[in-house]
Amino acid sequence: MMVPVISIVGSSGSGKTTFIEKVVGELTRRGIRVGVLKHDAHGFEIDHEGKDSWRHKQAGAVTVGLSSPEKLAVIKDVKREWKPERIIASYLLDNDIVITEGYKTGELPKLEVIRQAHSSTPATLGDSTLLGYITDVALDTDLLTFGLDDFTVVADFIEERFVNKKSDASNDTVSLVVNGANVTLKPFIEDLLREAVLGMIRSLKGCEEVEEVELRVRKSGR
Amino acid sequence: MMVPVISIVGSSGSGKTTFIEKVVGELTRRGIRVGVLKHDAHGFEIDHEGKDSWRHKQAGAVTVGLSSPEKLAVIKDVKREWKPERIIASYLLDNDIVITEGYKTGELPKLEVIRQAHSSTPATLGDSTLLGYITDVALDTDLLTFGLDDFTVVADFIEERFVNKKSDASNDTVSLVVNGANVTLKPFIEDLLREAVLGMIRSLKGCEEVEEVELRVRKSGR
Repeated sequence: MMVPVISIVGSSGSGKTTFIEKVVGELTRRGIRVGVLKHDAHGFEIDHEGKDSWRHKQAGAVTVGLSSPEKLAVIKDVKREWKPERIIASYLLDNDIVITEGYKTGELPKLEVIRQAHSSTPATLGDSTLLGYITDVALDTDLLTFGLDDFTVVADFIEERFVNKKSDASNDTVSLVVNGANVTLKPFIEDLLREAVLGMIRSLKGCEEVEEVELRVRKSGR
Repeated sequence: MMVPVISIVGSSGSGKTTFIEKVVGELTRRGIRVGVLKHDAHGFEIDHEGKDSWRHKQAGAVTVGLSSPEKLAVIKDVKREWKPERIIASYLLDNDIVITEGYKTGELPKLEVIRQAHSSTPATLGDSTLLGYITDVALDTDLLTFGLDDFTVVADFIEERFVNKKSDASNDTVSLVVNGANVTLKPFIEDLLREAVLGMIRSLKGCEEVEEVELRVRKSGR
């Protein structure tokens, strides 16, 4: 992945949205570009009834895009749910960090929010991807623990552990999605692929100064 | 481009949104996958105040994504407006046709909606990309003319001229964005690039049956 990802999980009502909101605000104040990806198993409402984009979607459009000088929005029907790695590879790469909300399973490194007044039972017990807890419960754990108000401390942790680590790895600059799934590349393969593609593109007229390439290829029907 | 595009233009209040809505409905009923991209020079409102995604965006997130089993949405800040070709290449390729609304300038083929009760002066005079008018005005023109209620006729036109033409060109299966701008490729270069990339990817473990590739490469800082 070209962008580091941390997942904040917790049962519904644990306060993870509020915590993420504060961490996003803190990281943004530090000049870090933050992307947030929220998982909602029950579906979500977006767009306003009666608006043009809503009307086009209602009429049957599979994908609706909106573009203005400041903002871009895309709403798309999917046949089955996309994995977060794929969504990030396709839509959220241009950030310094991506925080995901609500992906309880999967391979992303996780922090779980547990609020005593809501439920003091962790939802992630035994999950090897769990880094720690954000909680007001005194947990018997070897993992990291942060308080429910420690959003600046968690922002420090995210900045040091994820954002800065990323900027050291300057060769981490290839993302590959094959048949709709994100593919993890070994460093050697990543270098090879990057240099091969950049070399080909650079030989095209007007592309001599290539810095960034997005290439989509579909197998020909022929 | 991997997807054909037709642009519907017209001054504000001409009725282009309503017309597009009907054409989208008609094409969708025919089993055609339609994407719509709307240009709004004055900005747009999306997302609902108080919702989680809205809160994360307000907190400073540059990109906010939402994912459910049925739908995917992304809202992104941009530093300057993206050209429609770039948005389509990055976000709307998986459709049989993309209809854009409101891109009066640029290279996309266009139909203009003119409604007498609103304004009978075309906004696109002299534009070489204009294919015709959708209007209740008797215009002195060599271009195509459709009535304001002719949405099935326009759907026929779009299907024959754009959707079917596309499926004949089965080698039209590479899209390339370099440094944020869509690059048009000559057929030979497209073939070369497709086969080179597919060949490299196919040699990766687990990617032998590659059908579709999305590859992003950024020049390394080293």
